[in-house]
Amino acid sequence: PEAAAPARSAAGSPPQFPGLRQEKSLDSVPCWLCKMCGCSYLRVSPQIDLLPTSGGEGMTREFLQEIVNILMNYICKSYQRNSKVLDFHHPHQLKEGLEGFSLDLPEKPDTLEQILVDCRDTLKYGVNTGHPRFFNQLFAGLDVMGVAGEWLTSIANTNMFTYEMSPVFTLMEEVLLKKMHSIVRWSDDEGDGIFSPGGTMSNLYSMLVARYYFYPEVKTRGMGALPHLALFTSEHSHYSVKKSAAVLGLGIDNVFIVKCDERGKMIPEELEASILAAEEKNMVPFYVNATAGTTLYGAFDPLHAIADICQRHTLWMHVDVGASWGGGLLLSDRHRMKLQGIERAWSVTWNPHKMMGVPLQCSAILIKKKGLLQKCNELGAPYLFQKDKCYDVSYDTGDKSIQCGRHVDVFKLWLMWKAKGTEGFGAQVNKCLGNAKYLYDLLQRRKDFELVVKNKPEHSNVCFWYIPPSLRGMPPGTDRDKRLHQVAPQIKGRLMEKGSVLIGYQPTRTKVNFFRCVFANPATQPEDIDFLLEEIALLGHDL
Amino acid sequence: PEAAAPARSAAGSPPQFPGLRQEKSLDSVPCWLCKMCGCSYLRVSPQIDLLPTSGGEGMTREFLQEIVNILMNYICKSYQRNSKVLDFHHPHQLKEGLEGFSLDLPEKPDTLEQILVDCRDTLKYGVNTGHPRFFNQLFAGLDVMGVAGEWLTSIANTNMFTYEMSPVFTLMEEVLLKKMHSIVRWSDDEGDGIFSPGGTMSNLYSMLVARYYFYPEVKTRGMGALPHLALFTSEHSHYSVKKSAAVLGLGIDNVFIVKCDERGKMIPEELEASILAAEEKNMVPFYVNATAGTTLYGAFDPLHAIADICQRHTLWMHVDVGASWGGGLLLSDRHRMKLQGIERAWSVTWNPHKMMGVPLQCSAILIKKKGLLQKCNELGAPYLFQKDKCYDVSYDTGDKSIQCGRHVDVFKLWLMWKAKGTEGFGAQVNKCLGNAKYLYDLLQRRKDFELVVKNKPEHSNVCFWYIPPSLRGMPPGTDRDKRLHQVAPQIKGRLMEKGSVLIGYQPTRTKVNFFRCVFANPATQPEDIDFLLEEIALLGHDL
Repeated sequence: PEAAAPARSAAGSPPQFPGLRQEKSLDSVPCWLCKMCGCSYLRVSPQIDLLPTSGGEGMTREFLQEIVNILMNYICKSYQRNSKVLDFHHPHQLKEGLEGFSLDLPEKPDTLEQILVDCRDTLKYGVNTGHPRFFNQLFAGLDVMGVAGEWLTSIANTNMFTYEMSPVFTLMEEVLLKKMHSIVRWSDDEGDGIFSPGGTMSNLYSMLVARYYFYPEVKTRGMGALPHLALFTSEHSHYSVKKSAAVLGLGIDNVFIVKCDERGKMIPEELEASILAAEEKNMVPFYVNATAGTTLYGAFDPLHAIADICQRHTLWMHVDVGASWGGGLLLSDRHRMKLQGIERAWSVTWNPHKMMGVPLQCSAILIKKKGLLQKCNELGAPYLFQKDKCYDVSYDTGDKSIQCGRHVDVFKLWLMWKAKGTEGFGAQVNKCLGNAKYLYDLLQRRKDFELVVKNKPEHSNVCFWYIPPSLRGMPPGTDRDKRLHQVAPQIKGRLMEKGSVLIGYQPTRTKVNFFRCVFANPATQPEDIDFLLEEIALLGHDL
Repeated sequence: PEAAAPARSAAGSPPQFPGLRQEKSLDSVPCWLCKMCGCSYLRVSPQIDLLPTSGGEGMTREFLQEIVNILMNYICKSYQRNSKVLDFHHPHQLKEGLEGFSLDLPEKPDTLEQILVDCRDTLKYGVNTGHPRFFNQLFAGLDVMGVAGEWLTSIANTNMFTYEMSPVFTLMEEVLLKKMHSIVRWSDDEGDGIFSPGGTMSNLYSMLVARYYFYPEVKTRGMGALPHLALFTSEHSHYSVKKSAAVLGLGIDNVFIVKCDERGKMIPEELEASILAAEEKNMVPFYVNATAGTTLYGAFDPLHAIADICQRHTLWMHVDVGASWGGGLLLSDRHRMKLQGIERAWSVTWNPHKMMGVPLQCSAILIKKKGLLQKCNELGAPYLFQKDKCYDVSYDTGDKSIQCGRHVDVFKLWLMWKAKGTEGFGAQVNKCLGNAKYLYDLLQRRKDFELVVKNKPEHSNVCFWYIPPSLRGMPPGTDRDKRLHQVAPQIKGRLMEKGSVLIGYQPTRTKVNFFRCVFANPATQPEDIDFLLEEIALLGHDL
């Protein structure tokens, strides 16, 4: 047979995998598919040598080992400070097929060598979220134990609908939820919940269950049978509250946006006023979302004060520590007092994939009242949830979900908990908040930066402006604001181009574009924070 | 230091990992956390030796290699017919901590050796969904290329909200969606969509977007501003249609269940009659779900006839080839005619994680009309979707989603497509449907089995009863039904106990419990199908 074309490569010279070359004549290979279907596909496929082809075990091991070698090198490189956080290219550049990296989907199979090259290129042009200088999102880091958990999960390749399909993972979910209930400090006879695909979905669950709690007829008869409902969240809360209201048919105009103080905390008196305003419009308040660790400032709403108001008006109190990101702090003896009052919540969203460093995705919705989630969502599909099975079918928890099949998101968290212990998670959180304090102290001392919130950060968010020399003498006002508004986007563009640091920026209703630095990667050290400020000053000096 | 306690093990004798033993004195190890927080956690943690600890690279590689060795052995064993499909234990048995396998979450870290043992035990007590004799669900198999894709995805550890965070994956999603549009045969100027966490969520998207299309005010004002809406689906459709109606506040009573013929196909005249009945009740029909590949019989609704009716009444036509499972057939030249008319759909749910064998989870919702998905769901959160970024922000596709962060589900599909080509997927589908034909032929010849549907299967589902000798002479009627109803659950229980085969059963409104065999694993061979029937007969003979 002719030699295969050399693999295209964008990530340096093509790798050498002599073992993977298809030296043998393809015609002589038994095709495991052709026995039935008569097709000739596998005669030209690289998968001809892989399992489930008979005798494919050796090549399968060799191929996966090559993949693992690529991944291990990436993991180790992630932690090297001299490596780039990203190697940015514009959409049109990547689509044009940089150095042979083609995204097109073929009719005929590519070779195994090409597949390996494609994997290296995919990583090369991506963002290294494990890098100690990646400060862009509310997640960061690459936990080795979490990675091991994900790898195992993917080969277990199953769904969470029934005990039959996921005996071990079903029990791990139960164990994890119970642990989380106890950390929230609900009593032993309280606490239900489920893992969901992300914080927004968890917040949606809370609203769905709250609506069902007050109006169970909504499940059968729809919103048409209900009064005009109103819900409440702060101006600094996560946008998923509005998104969920839109999806559930509640309408975003019926979400009352409650004012915050200058630190981003909901003002309880404003909440009470909003509730009364809604009632005056003949609306029926039913749900309040309190945020613990806002996306922008990392602020904590005053939970006890909000709980008092909810109690007075008989409203569902949800605490979002997830789509926002206070969850991890519950594991820190030093910081959990910031969430005082969370035990009074009727539901809690908690995202272990944020502050706890679990690989994406891992989010839980906790519901205080047992059984409500099941009643709200169950339909009892007979092909999954047979009642005459040979085991205790109360462990078939899938009908609690609004999904059918649910991805297994619990194992990686379980494994990390085994490996770190509760103490380990607490130490990571302390480390990240220590980093925030370090940055805050630095910024207070520097003349070329300005803090957005003067108070010491409660969480690991620190928001600031860089003031280039050209703006330093300018008086406050529209002119200065207009120019300052452009500084952060321009520096961000240069940082992306250079690939040395990644940090986010945004404006608010009353403030021009500022940087938001967040710490979620325990690998980040003070030297990285020093570097961040120096790099911003270096790239923004001429603006 | 004292020697660590030997690792608990349920999966045979403890593995030997001499390299992982912590021989050095813990006090002499620099703690990467203590510099900031003063905690002593890492002095007792197994992670002390792993990255990001300085110098942890060697141990990280060694540990992950041990994990990979466990996983590779599992993968290879998956395909061995003499291995068990499952090693069943009841919930209370697993919770008691079988042979030292403890699910409890510790305060202090476990050792790395214990972690490895826990991983082996987790796999040991799980279900081997890649086994050639796993016929239980609408997914099966363990695709080596898909596994490679998942492993890479987990170390890339990012979200799909912005191009900035996922440049390569964002473009891969675009490429995949375009390919899927062209396979559905929408024109070049049509076609939008997004990957979602499962078929149920994709179906929910279709209903959400349909509601928004007819009543855009629902986003702001909620369902209260809308007329009394009605929607339509067949009695054999997936339960996600009802679930979505409950979530969206439409109400499951407003879902009209349209009758099917004896093969499980929606009867178009019944659909038209239901629409008229709804209108007579002053309800407003807006949405029809047609199913292509039902969960039970694998039946295909008559799409052209349904499209005609939708056109006449101006209703949104959704085709569910996902939560159900016809999607893969579009890739087979031999079978795609069964989906004729799909090009007339306004939206399509397609789950590559079913018939195409992509590891869980991978589902797409395709929307014909461009821009609708974005308008329906966008909220423009300023901390993610800044308009003043340095690149073309039309690639920030995250606001199309009802989630905030979305797990990267596209890479594994993209990689498999590269490795198999469109042809390869087609061949797999042909193989699975060939297996169904083989089973159907076998059942027709055997006296101890009875087909539920007499016609040749359209998909890879084959439904049947096993008739034990004690029932063979009995006349049809209540007595026989009552006894036959118990046969499948009892055999299933014995199969689970033995672990040789896994197959599902269920009743319908008019039929007692029967087995449903589905083929989704291309590793399954005729010998496995012979084995299935022999095993059922062997274990059910005395009933």
